[in-house]
Amino acid sequence: MSDLEIRPAKPEDIPAIVAMLADDPLGAQRESPDDLAPYRTAFDRLSGDPNQHLMVADRGGEVVGTLQLTVIPGLSRRGSTRSIIEGVRVHSAERGSGLGTRLIEWAVDESARQGCQLVQLTSDATRTDAHRFYERLGFEASHVGFKKPL
Amino acid sequence: MSDLEIRPAKPEDIPAIVAMLADDPLGAQRESPDDLAPYRTAFDRLSGDPNQHLMVADRGGEVVGTLQLTVIPGLSRRGSTRSIIEGVRVHSAERGSGLGTRLIEWAVDESARQGCQLVQLTSDATRTDAHRFYERLGFEASHVGFKKPL
Repeated sequence: MSDLEIRPAKPEDIPAIVAMLADDPLGAQRESPDDLAPYRTAFDRLSGDPNQHLMVADRGGEVVGTLQLTVIPGLSRRGSTRSIIEGVRVHSAERGSGLGTRLIEWAVDESARQGCQLVQLTSDATRTDAHRFYERLGFEASHVGFKKPL
Repeated sequence: MSDLEIRPAKPEDIPAIVAMLADDPLGAQRESPDDLAPYRTAFDRLSGDPNQHLMVADRGGEVVGTLQLTVIPGLSRRGSTRSIIEGVRVHSAERGSGLGTRLIEWAVDESARQGCQLVQLTSDATRTDAHRFYERLGFEASHVGFKKPL
């Protein structure tokens, strides 16, 4: 396989990113790959925020993975900065290739580089395979994640 | 009791905020109220970020509660913007007064006002009283929260 590069997402990557978000048991119900307008608006908003890092894994010009890393300063834990990982997806053709590990390792390394003391993420309670994956990478399932739709 | 105001934190509120962060079974082990320097640095970083809202509940000039609301744009869920609540604390003298509810309701209302489609938070698995509190306020414990210290 070609070399893999993890790089910031560009506007032309949006269709590939949305296709991956939708190619997922939960994402299939809540994404709209046939209408990219809301994604383009969100992309513009992300691009202007220096604490936001929407990344893609690029293999020979093909987008095969994505994640979003957000850096969040804060007062708690002696003024710790934390990072949050959201929207991790690996293209179906690449599953089992170690790409998920590469993406999370990138996020952990980048968080350390930016001075974060903590990396966190939430995973839907039904994604038990993902939970084992994060535990293997040194994450602890120490919290309960609450969500409220508006 | 005097009227309650929920307002952005000011630099002079830092000692009161840190005292509340430390007056907590988990916070007692990880905060340093005798050394405010790291908190002042973090405060400056938060103040410069328009997506960060470090708030205090002020009753007659006394800081009696705090929370941090972060607004996070994103591509997933049709370009949804979400918000994250962190660092919720209520002064010991105010516990049971409904102030926690007021703070969370403020965060939910402000998130809606800013166009968020989702509000989320994580709570340590040991804080079972807090879990019931969030469920009463319409949050669903749908996710597992993973953390990795760096």
